[in-house]
Amino acid sequence: MNELSPLSDVTLRVLEQVSTATLTTQLYKRGLRNVWMQGVAPLDRVTTSHLVGPAFTLRNIPAREDLATIETLGDPEFPQRKAIETVPPGYVLVQDCRGERNGASIGSILATRLKVRGVAGLVSDGPVRDCSVIAALGFPVFCSGASAPLNLIKHHPADINLPIGCGGVAVFPGDIIVGDGDGVVVVPRHLADEIANDAAEQEHLEDFLITLVQDGAPLLGTYPPSEETKAAYRAWKQKAAR
Amino acid sequence: MNELSPLSDVTLRVLEQVSTATLTTQLYKRGLRNVWMQGVAPLDRVTTSHLVGPAFTLRNIPAREDLATIETLGDPEFPQRKAIETVPPGYVLVQDCRGERNGASIGSILATRLKVRGVAGLVSDGPVRDCSVIAALGFPVFCSGASAPLNLIKHHPADINLPIGCGGVAVFPGDIIVGDGDGVVVVPRHLADEIANDAAEQEHLEDFLITLVQDGAPLLGTYPPSEETKAAYRAWKQKAAR
Amino acid sequence: MNELSPLSDVTLRVLEQVSTATLTTQLYKRGLRNVWMQGVAPLDRVTTSHLVGPAFTLRNIPAREDLATIETLGDPEFPQRKAIETVPPGYVLVQDCRGERNGASIGSILATRLKVRGVAGLVSDGPVRDCSVIAALGFPVFCSGASAPLNLIKHHPADINLPIGCGGVAVFPGDIIVGDGDGVVVVPRHLADEIANDAAEQEHLEDFLITLVQDGAPLLGTYPPSEETKAAYRAWKQKAAR
Amino acid sequence: MNELSPLSDVTLRVLEQVSTATLTTQLYKRGLRNVWMQGVAPLDRVTTSHLVGPAFTLRNIPAREDLATIETLGDPEFPQRKAIETVPPGYVLVQDCRGERNGASIGSILATRLKVRGVAGLVSDGPVRDCSVIAALGFPVFCSGASAPLNLIKHHPADINLPIGCGGVAVFPGDIIVGDGDGVVVVPRHLADEIANDAAEQEHLEDFLITLVQDGAPLLGTYPPSEETKAAYRAWKQKAAR
Amino acid sequence: MNELSPLSDVTLRVLEQVSTATLTTQLYKRGLRNVWMQGVAPLDRVTTSHLVGPAFTLRNIPAREDLATIETLGDPEFPQRKAIETVPPGYVLVQDCRGERNGASIGSILATRLKVRGVAGLVSDGPVRDCSVIAALGFPVFCSGASAPLNLIKHHPADINLPIGCGGVAVFPGDIIVGDGDGVVVVPRHLADEIANDAAEQEHLEDFLITLVQDGAPLLGTYPPSEETKAAYRAWKQKAAR
Amino acid sequence: MNELSPLSDVTLRVLEQVSTATLTTQLYKRGLRNVWMQGVAPLDRVTTSHLVGPAFTLRNIPAREDLATIETLGDPEFPQRKAIETVPPGYVLVQDCRGERNGASIGSILATRLKVRGVAGLVSDGPVRDCSVIAALGFPVFCSGASAPLNLIKHHPADINLPIGCGGVAVFPGDIIVGDGDGVVVVPRHLADEIANDAAEQEHLEDFLITLVQDGAPLLGTYPPSEETKAAYRAWKQKAAR
Repeated sequence: MNELSPLSDVTLRVLEQVSTATLTTQLYKRGLRNVWMQGVAPLDRVTTSHLVGPAFTLRNIPAREDLATIETLGDPEFPQRKAIETVPPGYVLVQDCRGERNGASIGSILATRLKVRGVAGLVSDGPVRDCSVIAALGFPVFCSGASAPLNLIKHHPADINLPIGCGGVAVFPGDIIVGDGDGVVVVPRHLADEIANDAAEQEHLEDFLITLVQDGAPLLGTYPPSEETKAAYRAWKQKAAR
Repeated sequence: MNELSPLSDVTLRVLEQVSTATLTTQLYKRGLRNVWMQGVAPLDRVTTSHLVGPAFTLRNIPAREDLATIETLGDPEFPQRKAIETVPPGYVLVQDCRGERNGASIGSILATRLKVRGVAGLVSDGPVRDCSVIAALGFPVFCSGASAPLNLIKHHPADINLPIGCGGVAVFPGDIIVGDGDGVVVVPRHLADEIANDAAEQEHLEDFLITLVQDGAPLLGTYPPSEETKAAYRAWKQKAAR
Repeated sequence: MNELSPLSDVTLRVLEQVSTATLTTQLYKRGLRNVWMQGVAPLDRVTTSHLVGPAFTLRNIPAREDLATIETLGDPEFPQRKAIETVPPGYVLVQDCRGERNGASIGSILATRLKVRGVAGLVSDGPVRDCSVIAALGFPVFCSGASAPLNLIKHHPADINLPIGCGGVAVFPGDIIVGDGDGVVVVPRHLADEIANDAAEQEHLEDFLITLVQDGAPLLGTYPPSEETKAAYRAWKQKAAR
Repeated sequence: MNELSPLSDVTLRVLEQVSTATLTTQLYKRGLRNVWMQGVAPLDRVTTSHLVGPAFTLRNIPAREDLATIETLGDPEFPQRKAIETVPPGYVLVQDCRGERNGASIGSILATRLKVRGVAGLVSDGPVRDCSVIAALGFPVFCSGASAPLNLIKHHPADINLPIGCGGVAVFPGDIIVGDGDGVVVVPRHLADEIANDAAEQEHLEDFLITLVQDGAPLLGTYPPSEETKAAYRAWKQKAAR
Repeated sequence: MNELSPLSDVTLRVLEQVSTATLTTQLYKRGLRNVWMQGVAPLDRVTTSHLVGPAFTLRNIPAREDLATIETLGDPEFPQRKAIETVPPGYVLVQDCRGERNGASIGSILATRLKVRGVAGLVSDGPVRDCSVIAALGFPVFCSGASAPLNLIKHHPADINLPIGCGGVAVFPGDIIVGDGDGVVVVPRHLADEIANDAAEQEHLEDFLITLVQDGAPLLGTYPPSEETKAAYRAWKQKAAR
Repeated sequence: MNELSPLSDVTLRVLEQVSTATLTTQLYKRGLRNVWMQGVAPLDRVTTSHLVGPAFTLRNIPAREDLATIETLGDPEFPQRKAIETVPPGYVLVQDCRGERNGASIGSILATRLKVRGVAGLVSDGPVRDCSVIAALGFPVFCSGASAPLNLIKHHPADINLPIGCGGVAVFPGDIIVGDGDGVVVVPRHLADEIANDAAEQEHLEDFLITLVQDGAPLLGTYPPSEETKAAYRAWKQKAAR
């Protein structure tokens, strides 16, 4: 479906550990400011775990009444159902719903199918229906909330795995999607390895800095760290490595 | 107050079981797309249970400072207080707050009075105040969130039990209001019996389909169901009925 | 920093007990309608406790790319960091983020520093990052939700302790900020003592009224109270005082 | 239709001369801040003249598909058509469209009928269709712009001549509606005479002040006027009266 | 580019005469309610004439900083420039800008190129730059207003002539776009002939009805027309046909 | 008031000639994307001419009812009036109104005073009152439209000539404000000379390119120009210079 080599295990494992906050900082340092989905949050902060995976996209355009019939749902070429059946295991299904707040991206049966197929999670800038059932599934869903009306009320699923916009951010198939309690960041595929590496280093440093702050260190000299603090960090790191 | 015969016990019991998602699908099949309140959610997903009941309406227009005095609250004809005292037990009080995000629909004392009177619940496209206290009451409230300032700051309660808009949906007195974790749907009164019947049948079928999906069935042929799947459902149903 | 005498212990203790709903009513009685922050809520209704304290302000203007460099964060005069280091213990840091939904007001390290310094809490009409970590800190934060990108993406911190707008409300340094489950109210400094006194009296009366409502009293004559109800309240109060 | 005596000729003539800006200032001085319609503008600044008249109201609620049929337009009791036929000559038809930007309040045939009937003008917080034709009619229309789809697409006309909201302002039948290049103000009926009188006096004074400003007078002492400036005004006025 | 036969001359000529208001009514009668672009207006009501033509689409997704370089504009495959060079004469270039209000769809040089190439017009749910120059060109542009920053600031042009959303409406390549003073309607390609025919008939009838209304006829019996009025219309039509 | 040397005559004269579109492109080439005011337009496209001048700022925060009295307008220290009296001739008065759509930035008397004082123009992200009178003044005003209620209804003028936000853009005192038919761009003071120089060169080139496009040149090779086109431009320029 796309020619990119799979994410390395190291990168994948690192991205499962680091926060979306750290990733946005690393992307900012490289001049990328528009990488954070607006209006997209974990469906349930309590039950939704960290989400990492390459993007597989579904694009919706506005519905037209004569095309939006219940019968279309049974068509094997209907892009929404086809996307759910063809997104590879470990990938994240990302839907462009144009930020529309009505018209559910999916409901409990489709979410169950995604989970059974081993899909990593769902991301949409629209809402879902059956939100209580989905929250209980243990399947990571990041979306704009809950709304019962079915997708046909607002959306005509147009095509699969083209570049889309979601939450105001460009998503190319294969881009790495990372979600946590804050929401969802899009890491361009070609930057994933270096971003993961630098993010891990940044978080390691910040783990050290927060112990200093907890012990009463002032921000100046600590965060961002002075040369002395950096030296102390290196010493701490070496000690920890032993 | 309105001449409709009471909801049958069967319809009422069914509507307490089915989801708002199912109801919007049944209404969609009949050409009704604008039945879902936008911007209205359960005050507290954990404590708010399923809500079903006929609508009793209160209409607010924008406040004018010379009319919005604390004294008006004591007037026996003040429509907000009168609505709370006259909404019949088992009904849902539905407030048109024009989607205004400031100015509370009710607070803890009025919510307590509604609960004591046996009212089924409150639905408003405005917020409530004292939200922590109300959430602890065990009285179903669906609204646009929390905001402390009293209703007078934004609303002039105008009249009772006229057709209103709430969350962008027409609500006629006596229409059946159903709320769950996703939010609130309005079922036109004259359709309630047939919608309830078909919704129950739809959910029964979906209960069967989801077991197939959990067991690994692909969507094609399952959801929507092929003739074979429908036959399997009928067999399953007969077995269950024995 | 400002010449106001400290809040009296009595006023402080009372404001820790009364609800923001009661305070908005007291302010409304004095003609103050625009005192409630819109779009600002406790980061986590479960973990965030009641917040009371005088305001210390930080003003942000829109970012300009050539000024928004990571290096600026280390400048001892950078207003965001300086605000965090100079807000007095017991005060509330209030940020004007112009309601911008992207660009975090603070993250976990800065929140930890505020907590270590004994600051009462943070209020912002923008979001925070690391929201799960901050929610676990036990440090009161009222804001517009979660968003990972760092503040520089949207904000240029401009100055400290000038009058600002936050959530559509004027906040003068030293104004008393009170937050609870409903959100945040601003009590002008010079009114704090009298508002606190009258709020306590109002809540005492309402505690009595709610027992009447729980026992089945109708609103008319009870809420607002008739002369008879007021007399019963006085009797109840005397009894309670004995 | 309402029991108010007709507006006096003096008041009417004055209100045709003064600006809406002056009227909002006079209302502000009496504590009325919420009198200005938001999102409502003259359809065409060039062709639309000053509008003054008492309000006759039409209330719309959200449409429901089974009620919104072309056939309903022929029903003699259909409130939209009935309103157009019964609004008295010299009155202003004010429509509550809930600020909905789609779904036209009226089109060219209905506007022509209003004009033929001697109605003073139309005010709506929704758009109109056939805007070029209506602009050419010479009939004052203040609305939220142009949109072709007919009203049924979004609105169910509910009733006539009840209090409504329009552009966020309360409009009671008989309130005096005044529109000019800035937009529309609602003058409560019982204040019309005194507001008109004071507005005329304010504009007379401002006519004098603007000549001073044009001649180079600084604002201080001029606007607002010092005692000396007021004395000069009185002299100017006496001279003009001779 | 698409396999549809060209619009018949009759249909084209009719659509150049009828208003978008009439077309939305005809589409409404066939159950199509979502055909009107929201937030899209003629750039200049005075200079922009009636627009009719089949749609040729350009889809934009959100910009990403590393892709949005001035150099990309010179790439012969850059979809924005390619669209402008390949949209057939007589077609309308329709851009999906996701309603973004910043980031211009086109400027004066590209508008000039479109005009020179014989393109019928431009429709976008984003703004244009150089609006005064474009308004003077005599080239029909319907958009969301004026904004100077170039498209790269917000948009990554993604592809050409796929189905898109524009102003909240589905636009399939070849759909007929009609614009006038009210704004823009999308007529699905397969309905164009019948819609044009019925629209012409509707306008002919309304031309007659408006003469009745101008002469003082009440709405009842006139609009919608009673059987008698319809008979009078047929007589008028026959007379006119002679 | 600020220590910057005055704008050179050359820069000023150039900025009076070039379009805001060209300026945003030059700023974009230097990494500055957030320089365009959103929601700010010329009050009247016909009467408002090109505006250029350094910024003098006025900051408003939300109004509080006890501070917003008519009497404050006469206080010589009231920042709004003081700003109008102290903004130097040739400067642009820029108001931060937080995008609030109600509450006028200024009215006709204050606009007249600004004009008499030789001020270059007014820019505000709020509306003005008396818009027809102001449009007739021939004084450049760029704002968010018209609204009659006086500023006190929404604004408390806080201070003068601090950095502010206006239309979502940072404005530092002395920054160069340029407005034309598209709207308003902010050129940071230290970049004004080089931006002006490069903008003039860009427009000169584009004047040449548009003649090619008018003569039928395709975009490829023309816009952006190939090496050959650039050579042709240089030749054209030399000829013109002779």
